[in-house]
Amino acid sequence: MITDALIERIVGLQNPTCVGLDTSFDYLPEKMREGVRDFSAAAERIFEFNKQLVDHLYDVVPSVKVQIAYYEMYGVPGLKAFEETLRYASEKGLIVIADAKRNDIGSTAACYSTAFLGETSVEGMRFRAFPADYVTVNGYLGTDGIQPFVKDCAEKDRGIFVLVKTSNPSSGELQNRLFDDGTPVYEYMGALVEKWGAGTEGRYGYSAVGAVVGATHPEEAARLRKLLPHTFFLIPGYGAQGANAEMLRCCFGADGLGGVVNNSRGILCAYKKDGGLYYESARKAAIAMQEDLSRTIGKMGR
Amino acid sequence: MITDALIERIVGLQNPTCVGLDTSFDYLPEKMREGVRDFSAAAERIFEFNKQLVDHLYDVVPSVKVQIAYYEMYGVPGLKAFEETLRYASEKGLIVIADAKRNDIGSTAACYSTAFLGETSVEGMRFRAFPADYVTVNGYLGTDGIQPFVKDCAEKDRGIFVLVKTSNPSSGELQNRLFDDGTPVYEYMGALVEKWGAGTEGRYGYSAVGAVVGATHPEEAARLRKLLPHTFFLIPGYGAQGANAEMLRCCFGADGLGGVVNNSRGILCAYKKDGGLYYESARKAAIAMQEDLSRTIGKMGR
Repeated sequence: MITDALIERIVGLQNPTCVGLDTSFDYLPEKMREGVRDFSAAAERIFEFNKQLVDHLYDVVPSVKVQIAYYEMYGVPGLKAFEETLRYASEKGLIVIADAKRNDIGSTAACYSTAFLGETSVEGMRFRAFPADYVTVNGYLGTDGIQPFVKDCAEKDRGIFVLVKTSNPSSGELQNRLFDDGTPVYEYMGALVEKWGAGTEGRYGYSAVGAVVGATHPEEAARLRKLLPHTFFLIPGYGAQGANAEMLRCCFGADGLGGVVNNSRGILCAYKKDGGLYYESARKAAIAMQEDLSRTIGKMGR
Repeated sequence: MITDALIERIVGLQNPTCVGLDTSFDYLPEKMREGVRDFSAAAERIFEFNKQLVDHLYDVVPSVKVQIAYYEMYGVPGLKAFEETLRYASEKGLIVIADAKRNDIGSTAACYSTAFLGETSVEGMRFRAFPADYVTVNGYLGTDGIQPFVKDCAEKDRGIFVLVKTSNPSSGELQNRLFDDGTPVYEYMGALVEKWGAGTEGRYGYSAVGAVVGATHPEEAARLRKLLPHTFFLIPGYGAQGANAEMLRCCFGADGLGGVVNNSRGILCAYKKDGGLYYESARKAAIAMQEDLSRTIGKMGR
């Protein structure tokens, strides 16, 4: 069961993190950018950069989150680099989260789910398009837009993370508004997430349907942790977005479990701060993050 | 100004429609599917199918909406077919809507906007990744996730359609819930759309920031038409999803303007009903839809 597998990696490494491979070509060291004049060459360098990072991180971090927007910018070649990154990280044993925030009506959501979690049928043969363990989704359309993903979660042993309370400054504009019964939107969405995940729980009690809960909003995160006992959190906001370990402590239970914390630029661009080789700096930054989190959260899986 | 351009095509053809190129490989006639054994071949046939459709529709319909999920299923080759379809439809003078329902925090939303509406910079050179006139977006994250798109709308003369009231059966689960001041979520989102579009209005009074409003929910659509005088509607739900022309009449003003109505399977798969050649059946279905809508809505641009 995928969330069990993620938790076991977290416990094994004592590290509840996820490196965000939001690899803009502009983040690459100058030498790697030399001579690049089109999307194909840019995408090759991006994959090369990611590959080195994965090679230097796979024994330190349990998972990666690959943000598709950064690849889509580089057109079809960019999406080839996205696909290669998913496959390579998976080969190295990392749990792979495709951060795509997909959403649509049922029939179309089924296509998205097939693309990331399922298998596409072509004249009776079956292929995986963008193979991920998890994909992020947006629940604005309600249950029938989420159901195709949940079906694939159950049938193919994959997972999703549904946007509940996002890390960005204006997330409260809609998400913190109160309904007429006094419930804020994010709590209502959280309750839907618990419902969608019901029946898929693994041995740690967490389901295959997780929630995106920003570390930048600790009050809401603490509330959600209490309300959603079976929901594993994907926690953005640490580092460049301004949240620290103390702020996200509330996302974890007494057993040190409950979520996985993303860091993108703080790892990818660590070399810009310490002047080292990008993959060595990334490894150092990932180790520092592990230390920071485990100091604050305590032993995971105790 | 892009919404003016769309309206002028609508008025010129007296046809407020948009053909949804949601081209699943399974929709292709048996002969076109023969011998296909991988994503590359499937994607080539999908593009060939789309090209024929565009050739037989560009003088009848003003616009196409290309739903990326159907291409993403076929991996990188599928997205090449997506890109080729956008470019080909645009060359033939159609207004091109990329239906991708993108959403993320500001820095990531900027990447998405670059991918569809803007230009990607690579070592000082600039390229378009997936060139569209409009892209659909989801506003769950609030203003800072939409602002990068609005900026590109203003600077590059493009547009977006924000999900307000979607056409699917469970859309009301979140979208029709009432806030503590009695406003339903879809009206609140609609008000945000008017705000986001303010200042981008063209000569017909409609802004570059439109709204997705499902024809399957006429009561909400009528209410939104009254509340959002500067917002052009992208209207899904006609045909296969169950809405008829009468139900979407309320999306249009006294001048016969106000939105563009999508039809996907009703056009793409028309040949399965009448047994004709797929592109001829599609053309006939598009003409029948034009007649149906213009009979109900009346003269556009009077």
